Amino acid sequence: MIQKLIANIRKTNAPIVVGLDPMMGFIPEHITKKAFDQCGETLEGAAEAVWQYNKEIVDAIYDLIPAVKPQIAMYEQFGIPGLMAFKKTVDYCKEKGLVVIGDVKRGDIGSTSAAYATAHLGKVKVGNQVLTPFGEDFATVNPYLGTDGIKPFIDVCKEEKKGLFILVKTSNPSSGEFQDRIVDGKPLYELVGEKVAEWADSCMGEDYSYIGAVVGATYPEMGKVLRKVMPKSFILVPGYGAQGGKAADLVHYFNEDGLGAIVNSSRGIIAAYKQEKYAAFGPENFAGASRQAVIDMIEDINGALQSR
Amino acid sequence: MIQKLIANIRKTNAPIVVGLDPMMGFIPEHITKKAFDQCGETLEGAAEAVWQYNKEIVDAIYDLIPAVKPQIAMYEQFGIPGLMAFKKTVDYCKEKGLVVIGDVKRGDIGSTSAAYATAHLGKVKVGNQVLTPFGEDFATVNPYLGTDGIKPFIDVCKEEKKGLFILVKTSNPSSGEFQDRIVDGKPLYELVGEKVAEWADSCMGEDYSYIGAVVGATYPEMGKVLRKVMPKSFILVPGYGAQGGKAADLVHYFNEDGLGAIVNSSRGIIAAYKQEKYAAFGPENFAGASRQAVIDMIEDINGALQSR
Repeated sequence: MIQKLIANIRKTNAPIVVGLDPMMGFIPEHITKKAFDQCGETLEGAAEAVWQYNKEIVDAIYDLIPAVKPQIAMYEQFGIPGLMAFKKTVDYCKEKGLVVIGDVKRGDIGSTSAAYATAHLGKVKVGNQVLTPFGEDFATVNPYLGTDGIKPFIDVCKEEKKGLFILVKTSNPSSGEFQDRIVDGKPLYELVGEKVAEWADSCMGEDYSYIGAVVGATYPEMGKVLRKVMPKSFILVPGYGAQGGKAADLVHYFNEDGLGAIVNSSRGIIAAYKQEKYAAFGPENFAGASRQAVIDMIEDINGALQSR
Repeated sequence: MIQKLIANIRKTNAPIVVGLDPMMGFIPEHITKKAFDQCGETLEGAAEAVWQYNKEIVDAIYDLIPAVKPQIAMYEQFGIPGLMAFKKTVDYCKEKGLVVIGDVKRGDIGSTSAAYATAHLGKVKVGNQVLTPFGEDFATVNPYLGTDGIKPFIDVCKEEKKGLFILVKTSNPSSGEFQDRIVDGKPLYELVGEKVAEWADSCMGEDYSYIGAVVGATYPEMGKVLRKVMPKSFILVPGYGAQGGKAADLVHYFNEDGLGAIVNSSRGIIAAYKQEKYAAFGPENFAGASRQAVIDMIEDINGALQSR
């Protein structure tokens, strides 16, 4: 799957990923109204609105981008119907040729981690049948529980040719509370980064490993260090745009070959029509605004990469 | 909800929680066969088997115990139908008067953590309706992302009178890889424990806070320290039985009042019929074996508490 991600990035010349993190407040009223007319003001109605909103955005942008990253929490909040919309979104994006990164941040131990890995990246045996529960291509995982928590995910990735992005340094203001604490003269995130590099070494595609890392755009100095600590890992970079990360800060997350990082934007793309810059599109053409925002983001990042 | 947990513990005189973590290999063949006959060898069939298995166990033990802890990964691996079985299990246990601890180990930042908190402990607004997505009473959460990740959960707990168990020191062999690293002369888990104590202080029920912690039974010396670091927090203790934790080791997880900890057993109870000790019950009476295993576990732990 790392090879498909790289191929998609080369084809689109766009080292970006769009976060499909639908909040009710982002969805234009005409979509919500139609969904509520059809299913009532129910979890099913909310899920239908989410799905129609996602579909229209994906239809408008899929040819420009290599990958999407649906954040499962935004679906889980609508219970079972919400998770059905998540699954529909995953399937639809895969049909469109996109790589799907399930932003699930799961993490547990032993058989429980194995069950999460099965759920999101693997297949489950039921009687004599082998079935696919959710079927994303990559998943984000939390390293706090150590190797026991990560290894079952790696096993499934090896079997299924899928991949991981392991949280190393997150983009939020308080990420330093634990992640930046100094251990043996180094911050904890660097120690986690070293572990990721170790895991990555045993999971190589061609030039890159299918074990990647999450490093927030909001900490560019740390990104620069972590790029060197994990030379073979793709870095998934949240925090561009809405959270304050700038393209010029992100060039050091990439390797010399122009690869090695994939920058995420969620609300900056999917709710672009709400920004003054794209207001002319109007809520009816929210997907057109998303397309323009994708074009602008690619130009912004590629511009920074070219002038480094 | 912490008051209900304490009331349930007092009523049953059983500081334990049963982990409803169904694996296909635990479920007796007669149940699986019936479910497959009805729904085929499908995710629906697996989910039906899980649900019937859970229901029979809960019916056999609900009067003896204060709480259950379904591990969502075990349901997520069966996709949407699996999650429907999770929801049915949560609802059924609540009907039976049990406190339900959703072992979901979620953790993210800002609006995403808020969405997870809504999903598992809160209510979601859809149009003019206010709906309950999953509706557990407590949830387990991962602290690696810091206060930004925890605060949205705490906000929902305050609003809904629910509670959390935050991972401090997990029961697995490699939990020390990051959790035990020394920061300013103290292990990281202690630092996390201090944060939990701080959060707990602002979330008091009567004598106990509704912000608790997870500390594995397999590290009794650390449990002793963490008990003092977090005096007002309930400690959820995994790792008893199958993972090697012994009752005598667990007495220091409790306060002098006999409260403050709740010891989990999963496969030791739900798959008791597979142990030599309970083999006489046979697969047909697997639930009877679970009931006897609950009685034995309560006696084991109360015995250790009385002789301390």
